Amino acid sequence: MAAQTVESTGNPTVDLGPAAALSCRECGHRVPLGPVFACEECFGPLEIAYDFSAYDTEELRRRIEAGPANIWRYAPLLPVPADVADKPNLNPGWTKLVKADNLARELGVTGGLYVKDDSGNPTHSFKDRVVAQALEAARAFGFTTLSCSSTGNLAGAVGAAAARAGLRSCVFIPHDLEQGKVVMAAVYGGELVGIEGNYDDVNRFCSELIGDPAGEGWGFVNVNLRPYYAEGSKTLAYEICEQLGWRLPDQIVVPIASGSQLTKIDKGLQELIRLGLVEDRPYKIFGAQAEGCSPVSTAFKAGHDVVRPQKPDTIAKSLAIGNPADGPYVLDIARRTGGAVEDVTDAEVVDAIKLLARTEGIFAETAGGVTVGVTRKLLKDGVLDPAKSTVVLNTGDGLKTLDAVAGTGLTATIRPNLDSFREAGLAS
Amino acid sequence: MAAQTVESTGNPTVDLGPAAALSCRECGHRVPLGPVFACEECFGPLEIAYDFSAYDTEELRRRIEAGPANIWRYAPLLPVPADVADKPNLNPGWTKLVKADNLARELGVTGGLYVKDDSGNPTHSFKDRVVAQALEAARAFGFTTLSCSSTGNLAGAVGAAAARAGLRSCVFIPHDLEQGKVVMAAVYGGELVGIEGNYDDVNRFCSELIGDPAGEGWGFVNVNLRPYYAEGSKTLAYEICEQLGWRLPDQIVVPIASGSQLTKIDKGLQELIRLGLVEDRPYKIFGAQAEGCSPVSTAFKAGHDVVRPQKPDTIAKSLAIGNPADGPYVLDIARRTGGAVEDVTDAEVVDAIKLLARTEGIFAETAGGVTVGVTRKLLKDGVLDPAKSTVVLNTGDGLKTLDAVAGTGLTATIRPNLDSFREAGLAS
Repeated sequence: MAAQTVESTGNPTVDLGPAAALSCRECGHRVPLGPVFACEECFGPLEIAYDFSAYDTEELRRRIEAGPANIWRYAPLLPVPADVADKPNLNPGWTKLVKADNLARELGVTGGLYVKDDSGNPTHSFKDRVVAQALEAARAFGFTTLSCSSTGNLAGAVGAAAARAGLRSCVFIPHDLEQGKVVMAAVYGGELVGIEGNYDDVNRFCSELIGDPAGEGWGFVNVNLRPYYAEGSKTLAYEICEQLGWRLPDQIVVPIASGSQLTKIDKGLQELIRLGLVEDRPYKIFGAQAEGCSPVSTAFKAGHDVVRPQKPDTIAKSLAIGNPADGPYVLDIARRTGGAVEDVTDAEVVDAIKLLARTEGIFAETAGGVTVGVTRKLLKDGVLDPAKSTVVLNTGDGLKTLDAVAGTGLTATIRPNLDSFREAGLAS
Repeated sequence: MAAQTVESTGNPTVDLGPAAALSCRECGHRVPLGPVFACEECFGPLEIAYDFSAYDTEELRRRIEAGPANIWRYAPLLPVPADVADKPNLNPGWTKLVKADNLARELGVTGGLYVKDDSGNPTHSFKDRVVAQALEAARAFGFTTLSCSSTGNLAGAVGAAAARAGLRSCVFIPHDLEQGKVVMAAVYGGELVGIEGNYDDVNRFCSELIGDPAGEGWGFVNVNLRPYYAEGSKTLAYEICEQLGWRLPDQIVVPIASGSQLTKIDKGLQELIRLGLVEDRPYKIFGAQAEGCSPVSTAFKAGHDVVRPQKPDTIAKSLAIGNPADGPYVLDIARRTGGAVEDVTDAEVVDAIKLLARTEGIFAETAGGVTVGVTRKLLKDGVLDPAKSTVVLNTGDGLKTLDAVAGTGLTATIRPNLDSFREAGLAS
C-alpha cells in the first residue's frame, strides 16, 4: 500500500482529497498540486501521487459500497475533495457491466464475457468521467472557464459539465465540422468557437492561449488540467472489479486513442491490489486500435519501444490520434501483463458494432466496434484465452456515429395487408 | 393495502409474480392473465390487478433498497416473475433524479426542482421500462417474436430488448421514414419491415395481424401485451419517491402521448401510499403537450370529459398521438389531484430544450422540451406553486431529435491566433 504514498509537498490551499502532489512519470520529480502537466526537469508527463496511507482495507471497502451510484463512491481514491458528491456535477459512472452471454456464445468464450458499457454516462461517453475530475481541479485552482479542443465526445462532456457546475465554457473546434457534431456541442449554451484551420491548428492555438494572459483563469481539461483529468479513467478499473465482486478480470480489452485510458486502468487495478481490495493475481491488458490509425499496434507487432506517428484515416474518429502521447506506456503495460495490441479494419469495426447490437442490444460507437472487433480477432488468433474472464470496453454511444452503420436498413418492404406479409416470408 | 388486492382468477401456468388477474378499468370485469387488452364485456381497457396482501411495509422497503440498481428492485410490485433480474434483459431504470438548482433559480422555484432524466436508459428513452415488462409477459405466454409499430423510440427499445433476450423481433414502420431513424431501429438486427402507407396504415395492419394465424406467437408490446407493457411506467413513480427519500413530490409534470404514462405514474403513487411506503398526503399531477398535438390540454381547458382527436403537427413527434387512448383518465387525474394540463408551442419546446441544457447539462428530447416548457408556463401563470417540491420528467434523449435544435451553432469563428481571439471578445 505504501508504494505510491508520498508526503504532501505543499500547496495547502488546494484540497483535492488524497492527491498529495504531482510526480513525473519519467524522472519522479515532485511538484505541488497545480495546473501544470509537464515536468520542469525532464518534460515528462506529470501524474497524481496519492497519500492512501491512512486507509484500512475493510473500512474503505464499506465506505465505497455505501457510496453513491456514480464515480464519487471512489472519491477516497481520486483527486477530488471529500464533499465532491455534494457539488453540482453530472455524477457520471457506475455504468452497467453487462454479462454478454449471447456474444460469448458467438465468439466461443466460456470463461465469462462482459461489456463495460459507458454509453450510459450522462453525455453518453466515458469522457464524462475524466471531465468530472478536471472540473474539480478547475474549482480548486479558481478557474472560471472550462475549455478544450475537440471534434466530438469531449466537446459535449465539457459543455454539459460546465453548464451544471455554473462555470463558463469555451470549446474550440475546426470551423467546418459536420453540423450534427456542432449541434451536440452547442446545445449546452457555452462558447463554441470555430477555428479557421484543421484540428492541428486548433490544438496549436489552444497551447498558445494557455501561455498567454488572455487565457488566464482558463482550465483546458486535457492540457493544463490533464494530470487530474486523466485520473478519471481509473474509475473504469474500480467499477469493473467491484461489479465483478471485487475480483480482477483475467483479460481486459481497452481502446487506444492517446493511450491514457489504458494506462490509467492499469494504474487503477494496481491501486486496488496494493490497497488489498482485490486479490493480487495476474491480469492481461489488451489494446485495440483501428487499422487506419494504428501506431501503437504497429509498434507492438514490430517489437518497437517507440511509436511512429501516423496520419489517421478511419471511421473510428474518437480514437484517431496519430501520435498518441501515452503510446510507449501502453506498449510497456501490454508487454508486462502478457497482453497485446491489435487493430481491425473499418469494415470489421462496422461488423462488430452490428454483432454487439444483435447479440446484446448495445448500440456502440465506432470505438466500441474497435474493441469488440479486436476481441473477436484476438480470440480467433488464440491470443485471448476463451476460458478466461474477459471484459471489453464500450466507451461511447452509437447515436453519435450513426454514419458508420448507415448501410443498415429495412429487411423487407410490404403493402399493408396479410397477403403481402406472407409473401415476404415473415409469418411465424 | 387491500384496495386493489384480488384473488387469483386462474391461469396457474403463468407466473408473473404479484400480478393476479386482468381487470377492466371501466366495469371491473376480471379475466385470467393472458395476451388480451380489451374487456370482453364492455371493450374497456384491461389492466393488471395485483395481490400485494402478503407484504409487510418495512420488509418490502428493505427488499427494494437491497435490490439491483434498475427497475427490478421493484419486482415485487410488477407483473414479472421473482427471478426476473437473473434473465437476460436490458435492466433499465434507476435513472438519475437530478436536483436542478440552476433551473430552479431561473424559474423562481424555491421548493426544490428535480428532473427525472430517463435519457439514461439503455436505449435512451423511458420506453425501455415498458418494453421490459412486455418482454416478461411475452416469455410467460410463450411468444417467440416481439413486435410493435413505431416511428421512433419504441422501435429501438423493442429491437434491443429482443436481441438481448434472444427473441426474434419484427418492427413495423412506414416505408419512407427518415434514414437516421431507420438506422437506429435496424442496428439491432431484427426484422424491420417498411409498410407502404402512413403510420395509420401500419397500425391497422398490425391489428389485422394480431387476429390472424400468421401472427401466432407474436407479442405486440403495445397491443396484445399492452396491460403488462403499460405497468412499466409505474417504476417512474417508485423511483422518484425512493430517490426523494421515500417521499411524494408535491407536484409532478408528465408528458402526454397516449396518456398511459401519466395514469400509471398516478397508479404507482397510489400503490406506494396504500403499501405504506410513503406518507399519504396530497400531490398534484400536471400533463404536458405540444400545442400542435394538444387534444387533452384542449379538453382540460374547455372543461370537457371527452377528448376530441386532432391531427398532429409538432416537432415533439414522440408525443404526437392525436387520439390518446388514456386521455379521459388523464383528465380525471389532473382534476382529482388539483393539477392541470397545458401545452406549449414548438418554439417554446426548443427554448426549453436549450434552457435545460444550459442550466443543468441535460440534453433532452423534444418531449423533455415539452415538460420543461409547460413547467415554465405553469409557473408563470401561477398554476404550479414555486414553493412546492416539483419533479419534471425528461423521457428521452436529445441525440434522437437533433433536428429540433439544428439552429444551434458556433458562437464565434476566429483565425488560429491570439489577436483574432481577443478581437472576438473571448478573453477572460
